[in-house]
Amino acid sequence: MENRTYTADAEPGESVTVAGWVHELRDLGGIAFLILRDTTGKIQIKFEKDEMDDELVETGLGVARESVISVTGDVDEEPRAPTGVEITPDSVEVVAEADTELPLDPSGKVDAELSTRLDNRTLDLRKEEVQAIFTIRAEIQHAARETFRDLDCTEINTPKIVATGTEGGTELFPITYFGEEAFMNQSPQLFKQLIAGSNVERVFEIGPIFRAEEHNTPRHLNEATSIDFEGAFCDHHEAMDVAEAVVTAAYEAVNENCEDELEALGLAEEFEVPTGDFPRLSYEEAIERINATGELDEQLLWGDDLPTEGEVALGEDVGEHYFITDWPSEIKPFYIMDQDDDEQLSTGFDLMHPRMELVSGGQREHRYDHLIEGFEQQGLDPEAFDYYTKMFKYGMPPHAGFGLGGERLVMTLLGLDNIREGVLFPRDRQRLSP
Amino acid sequence: MENRTYTADAEPGESVTVAGWVHELRDLGGIAFLILRDTTGKIQIKFEKDEMDDELVETGLGVARESVISVTGDVDEEPRAPTGVEITPDSVEVVAEADTELPLDPSGKVDAELSTRLDNRTLDLRKEEVQAIFTIRAEIQHAARETFRDLDCTEINTPKIVATGTEGGTELFPITYFGEEAFMNQSPQLFKQLIAGSNVERVFEIGPIFRAEEHNTPRHLNEATSIDFEGAFCDHHEAMDVAEAVVTAAYEAVNENCEDELEALGLAEEFEVPTGDFPRLSYEEAIERINATGELDEQLLWGDDLPTEGEVALGEDVGEHYFITDWPSEIKPFYIMDQDDDEQLSTGFDLMHPRMELVSGGQREHRYDHLIEGFEQQGLDPEAFDYYTKMFKYGMPPHAGFGLGGERLVMTLLGLDNIREGVLFPRDRQRLSP
Repeated sequence: MENRTYTADAEPGESVTVAGWVHELRDLGGIAFLILRDTTGKIQIKFEKDEMDDELVETGLGVARESVISVTGDVDEEPRAPTGVEITPDSVEVVAEADTELPLDPSGKVDAELSTRLDNRTLDLRKEEVQAIFTIRAEIQHAARETFRDLDCTEINTPKIVATGTEGGTELFPITYFGEEAFMNQSPQLFKQLIAGSNVERVFEIGPIFRAEEHNTPRHLNEATSIDFEGAFCDHHEAMDVAEAVVTAAYEAVNENCEDELEALGLAEEFEVPTGDFPRLSYEEAIERINATGELDEQLLWGDDLPTEGEVALGEDVGEHYFITDWPSEIKPFYIMDQDDDEQLSTGFDLMHPRMELVSGGQREHRYDHLIEGFEQQGLDPEAFDYYTKMFKYGMPPHAGFGLGGERLVMTLLGLDNIREGVLFPRDRQRLSP
Repeated sequence: MENRTYTADAEPGESVTVAGWVHELRDLGGIAFLILRDTTGKIQIKFEKDEMDDELVETGLGVARESVISVTGDVDEEPRAPTGVEITPDSVEVVAEADTELPLDPSGKVDAELSTRLDNRTLDLRKEEVQAIFTIRAEIQHAARETFRDLDCTEINTPKIVATGTEGGTELFPITYFGEEAFMNQSPQLFKQLIAGSNVERVFEIGPIFRAEEHNTPRHLNEATSIDFEGAFCDHHEAMDVAEAVVTAAYEAVNENCEDELEALGLAEEFEVPTGDFPRLSYEEAIERINATGELDEQLLWGDDLPTEGEVALGEDVGEHYFITDWPSEIKPFYIMDQDDDEQLSTGFDLMHPRMELVSGGQREHRYDHLIEGFEQQGLDPEAFDYYTKMFKYGMPPHAGFGLGGERLVMTLLGLDNIREGVLFPRDRQRLSP
């Protein structure tokens, strides 16, 4: 609409046309108020029944909630109105009438189950606090991209239809590709390495990944957004620095640019930007500290992977973002390099939020012979990965990188209970639609 | 590498460590030159055989081309060197030795078939002009995102695994999703509309789309990048303005920020930024002008879709980007709205580069009853799309949008012959790997 004014921009003394949804109607007898809502906020429309054209009053007050209307009128200061201004309408047009029965109440007065909300996302997103989550999500992605650009990284797009999975055939969704078996990619891992091995050197990608895991928890998704980095001539220490920079930049950007959204989510007071310099705990230190909490029934032994309750106990103990480094090689994937001076230890690292793992990364194995051995030890046929391994024969520089769970970053940054709150249309074992 | 200097930053008088690939070796007898290449460019390393340590000379001159090496030494001015400076090495370390037989010559002296290049993308991307394409591609995506942000759009991520296709079951890749039939999404169309119908109002997405079309041409892909926009309270005219702004911004950004890359591609002289204000031809005018060119064997009649050779003839005639508007309703999809005053005419539009279609868009049908009719006319069962259509009952504002082919934008902007030149790992009927 060419001449539409956002409600947030309607200034007293102006004549404006605003358009949006009927948020609320309050009929006080001789006077009635309609609250109109658009993407920028809300504004009060005043109907004085005796002084206005009957048809105008009837149209304005007869319309069902959540209908779309357009209102032209004069803006005046009104200290008692929610935003300090109100519009006295000259005309009201009903643009799209809504059913009187709504599956969900966007005014938020009636709580709804998450599944009802996800089934009716359009209505759900009309709530200020839900809209705020997705404004912040967009801001986080923007901050991540700008950080990568500042660090000389080139944005890439890698294929999502692939012939083989990153770590073999498990946990992949199979597709039929012109009669051939193919899969939806579970990680850009192998592809970003192939680009880091070229002149492009430092790359990032923010894109979908697909995992056919049977998990059904508040922090797993079967389709997620991965924030990936890979850099030639980087080691795992530098990759950790990049991960730290991206996570910190996300908090900074939200803190600077999303004041209203944090307010809408009730987080304005408590929101804290991490100071960076996340502590770097060795795996050995991590299991010792977990064992010392006494939260686990059984003590962890060197070589055990960290169970969820161990991560939670350690997170509470550390109380801020932290890295876990020096993992046993045997519990990290084959493409992660062992340490030079101790092949029992891996260069792999995890970046943890106190609540959960955010990032997994490490220096990659760039030596052809070691890589082939790694495939074999993992029980994978190196031949099937020939398109990848052969490039390691033609001058593959040392390189390192990581994958950061985009939704986990949103979830932990905002303290969401369920990862699905931060995804427009989540995919899990039960949910394929909308 | 902590103390690495990019070749482009090596200043005379400094002692530096550079790292990269052995681009070329020239042995002139008593003196020899090694050209080292990294992501920023190239630098000459000088070996004076009689004056240097034998082992150093042997290491530097004995290494196979495309091996990765690291060189520490002093930088001096040398007008005869390709970049005006050279390094006299104190030490040379071979970081990753390359095979002496390469499937592809990154120095570009030997031409390779596209399929060989795609099979060996890591080597291919070591060519300056290939790297330049992907630097420019990243710049185009960045320019598009910044333009959308300036236009109050929120970035969204919509699901790629879906229960139904945008336009029914044809041309979809089927997947098995926990025992259920699902598909890879061919367009974010329905999802972006669902978000435009909420308070978010104006959205964009840059993400993968999947089309199981049997086309095998230089301008079709089976996995592509779609640049999508959708805006509530927008009509098709406003959507055309947004499309024009995004395409123009892409050219401007490349012109401003990618001088070296245009140079590498031999385009620095001829590159032109479109002035905007693309002509808007009606469909009727378009077929008249095509018929007038005499390039087609048969005259086009009102209602015909435009054949490729018709688009090419018209593009040559117009000579710049242009829109085609006022299409017959019957050849546009059901979700495109008819014009108010003539339901034979659609609000759909295409934005054309002289070589091919870039964008398809229009105002969307937001009226529930009309939408259901549209599904039925298209032979689709509206019940299967209930997750989408039901939201149109709860106050769906008028809205408009478009999808812009990301690779077609790269291809036309750079004058590439084949769309695959602008995709790291293209997917087509024959190619699933790497």
